[in-house]
Amino acid sequence: MINGQTHYEDDSLALHTDLYQINMAETYWAEGISERKAVFELFFRKLPFEGGYAIFAGLQRMIEYIEQFHFSESDLAYLRDELGYGDDYLAYLRTLRFNGTIKSMREGELVFANEPIVRVEAALAEAQLIETALLNIVNYQTLIATKAARIRSAVGDAPLLEFGSRRAHEMDAALWGARAAIIGGCDATSNVRCGKRFGAKVSGTHAHAMVQAMQDEYEAFRSYAGRQKKMRRPCVFLIDTYDTLKSGIVNAIRVVQELEIGNLFEGVRLDSGDMAYLSKEVRKLLDNAGFPQTKIYASNDLDEYTVMSLKAQGAAIDAWGIGTKLITAYDQPALGAVYKLVAIEDENGNMADTIKISGNPEKVTTPGMKKLYRIINQVNRRSEGDYIALEDENPAGEKRLKMFHPVYTYISKFVTNFEARELHADIFAGGKLVYDMPQLSSIQAYAKQNLELLWDEYKRNQNPEQYPVDLSQNCWDNKMNMIQRIKQKVEGSAE
Amino acid sequence: MINGQTHYEDDSLALHTDLYQINMAETYWAEGISERKAVFELFFRKLPFEGGYAIFAGLQRMIEYIEQFHFSESDLAYLRDELGYGDDYLAYLRTLRFNGTIKSMREGELVFANEPIVRVEAALAEAQLIETALLNIVNYQTLIATKAARIRSAVGDAPLLEFGSRRAHEMDAALWGARAAIIGGCDATSNVRCGKRFGAKVSGTHAHAMVQAMQDEYEAFRSYAGRQKKMRRPCVFLIDTYDTLKSGIVNAIRVVQELEIGNLFEGVRLDSGDMAYLSKEVRKLLDNAGFPQTKIYASNDLDEYTVMSLKAQGAAIDAWGIGTKLITAYDQPALGAVYKLVAIEDENGNMADTIKISGNPEKVTTPGMKKLYRIINQVNRRSEGDYIALEDENPAGEKRLKMFHPVYTYISKFVTNFEARELHADIFAGGKLVYDMPQLSSIQAYAKQNLELLWDEYKRNQNPEQYPVDLSQNCWDNKMNMIQRIKQKVEGSAE
Repeated sequence: MINGQTHYEDDSLALHTDLYQINMAETYWAEGISERKAVFELFFRKLPFEGGYAIFAGLQRMIEYIEQFHFSESDLAYLRDELGYGDDYLAYLRTLRFNGTIKSMREGELVFANEPIVRVEAALAEAQLIETALLNIVNYQTLIATKAARIRSAVGDAPLLEFGSRRAHEMDAALWGARAAIIGGCDATSNVRCGKRFGAKVSGTHAHAMVQAMQDEYEAFRSYAGRQKKMRRPCVFLIDTYDTLKSGIVNAIRVVQELEIGNLFEGVRLDSGDMAYLSKEVRKLLDNAGFPQTKIYASNDLDEYTVMSLKAQGAAIDAWGIGTKLITAYDQPALGAVYKLVAIEDENGNMADTIKISGNPEKVTTPGMKKLYRIINQVNRRSEGDYIALEDENPAGEKRLKMFHPVYTYISKFVTNFEARELHADIFAGGKLVYDMPQLSSIQAYAKQNLELLWDEYKRNQNPEQYPVDLSQNCWDNKMNMIQRIKQKVEGSAE
Repeated sequence: MINGQTHYEDDSLALHTDLYQINMAETYWAEGISERKAVFELFFRKLPFEGGYAIFAGLQRMIEYIEQFHFSESDLAYLRDELGYGDDYLAYLRTLRFNGTIKSMREGELVFANEPIVRVEAALAEAQLIETALLNIVNYQTLIATKAARIRSAVGDAPLLEFGSRRAHEMDAALWGARAAIIGGCDATSNVRCGKRFGAKVSGTHAHAMVQAMQDEYEAFRSYAGRQKKMRRPCVFLIDTYDTLKSGIVNAIRVVQELEIGNLFEGVRLDSGDMAYLSKEVRKLLDNAGFPQTKIYASNDLDEYTVMSLKAQGAAIDAWGIGTKLITAYDQPALGAVYKLVAIEDENGNMADTIKISGNPEKVTTPGMKKLYRIINQVNRRSEGDYIALEDENPAGEKRLKMFHPVYTYISKFVTNFEARELHADIFAGGKLVYDMPQLSSIQAYAKQNLELLWDEYKRNQNPEQYPVDLSQNCWDNKMNMIQRIKQKVEGSAE
């Protein structure tokens, strides 16, 4: 231990995992089954925020993680010296890379409960060892992209800015959360690293500290505006350091008039007090001073509900800065995605379906290798629902598709004249990256375009209608048969 | 852009900040005030989880961040090419390092609302540029250490394990959150990287996937237990893959008996179903089979409230695995710490106090350079409260200390026979690290020992009594005088 740390370098992400993954891989390796082909699916069981949809994000990080996946010498030394793993197993881990196949939704795709977002086909041990990281990535980023889309729907077309870095759960969350927020519909982020890494538009003005540091609000505004004028950059003044109406807005207008920079007078920002009242008063003062185009920015613990409420009261807010409640997904800070084995190669080299039964009915998995389709009505270009079929089925070839509820099976409909759009893209094939990541702006546009496929009833932020995610008849029959077989086996062994 | 990323390397954390920090630093630099000495304090305004205390964590990460703080060439290229900053300013940033002084609480320290956790004294621009990172670090880690302490208090002395990596907000949160959870009282974490980096004890067994992969629960348990026997490692079987009572526990006991490894039969784990009922039934079966020492682990969306509720029902749970609700601080996923300027060097080289007034009364800051003391009663060794005094005061030298509520000032008490323990340690002096980080286990012990200073009334998880955090008379007078002065100035300018 040196200065509170161990002597191992932090030079790989292979140990960004739960210990049981390393243990299970060891058992597979010791039993000689680590190379058997396994198929895992990643999915969540419940939409976040009691909403009607989610927006998938996390693929880029997943790709980066998989591409660099390996156990470093320091990882192996730690596993040997501190945890007592044997040299033979560590020799196996030393050369282990991800050589499997991954199919995934594209970022910006709409995703619903109980459908496979990511499908991993790989040697059992390889697929097992990446589980924790994949869940960690997808759970967080999907949550934030979804929250951003909800806030975007409340905001309408007004500028929407992500300001949450100081409240994000550590540094990675600030970076990848900001990126996910852009996917979900934010125009820009305050996080500069996100701009540097992903080409996100960045946004920011000044804080209270600048006003305090110059000890006089007028002087501070004058310095700031003078600098902006010289650089020909727009000015947004934060006007609530001392008193919004008596001091902040007065000094902002005075400085703009004195420096004759009305053309750069982009906005003023409110960060405390009652936003509805203050924004309306500030609007009057700006209009009376001849700045009707100057925007009022608001930022103070906002989320989709407060935005809707302020708008309902006629608050004169033109642009929205969202911090804490977006970047932490405050009202539901976890998405419960899981990663479940659905098929495994048996000792004869054949693929066998697998299932997990549970005392909690919603935790029973759907066995088998599956494909996922979005069934789009060709007449109105809206989606009729999603359709999960077994690998060898081809719903696109059917004229008339029966869609039925996977729990309330008596609820069903027939769909004709549809497009069955397969939702998985090939990401890795035999360990090789075969996918071109789009730019962030294209992903954002893709998310927006996907939302247009949905009826408004599914997009309502509160009490939305439930979007259908149905199993094909074959898929459903296969699940029921497996449940039956397992039950018989369990009852048999209990006798 | 190459494959969804820009061409800039991610080779520094200097841009892990909000854009406005870079803008403000530019204004300071352009105005020639960037080198003026500034004092910022980091504090939060409200305790998390409606609790009675918080546990500070984040110092190690802060130290690592400050030590490596610099703008890399790729940072500067991005700021120039994409954001249009001028070469002169960038030349200034190129050589900028943190050369200031930082005082901070030690990790594991008890912390309350409105008291300075960290105090930064540095050149104005330097202190400004590190704000976002410091808040990001302290907010998250303090939240998790606090949540862990609450869960520990519900669990009592039983083993308590952190299992949340898959639900943490991206990778940094899994690592640093696990570390903070250990500080707050967890015995171990499943996150292997946390073990490698910080020497945390790691813990883990196997998942449902292993049982499914071997297609037979008995065979899977036999393989796993065989491996553990060979390595002389304890076995914990996850028994709810198919049916806890009819299959899981039956197979676990059978395998242990067949392999004659009763001495390694550490436990069984329940991850679904009703924990109270199942644990009691499993306990009976274990006892009847002659394994009274085998522990029952529970892990399924637990937090301090569910733990208390299960214990109240007599659930036979011996060890607790806590995932989602700890690592995301589910019921309050953000701590609102802020970083406020309290004093600044004026043009004559004298330090002048600063204040921020606000429409929200709790957002008014306390001006001036301050020290923070814990007032410990020498008779009962319990804390009487915390005491914030101006830099030049010395409460330790007083015989009889008046402590009064900083809002309801008519509530006061006199304390005698006390120790006034200063809570800040010197971390950086003139940019140089002067603090030896303790090992993680020592930090955990320090937190535990600190909690013993508190009366139980402050430690109650629900509806605790409020712990006093008082201002000295001088500190309070100074604040009132400044508010008065600013008000007069604002009224004057509004006339």
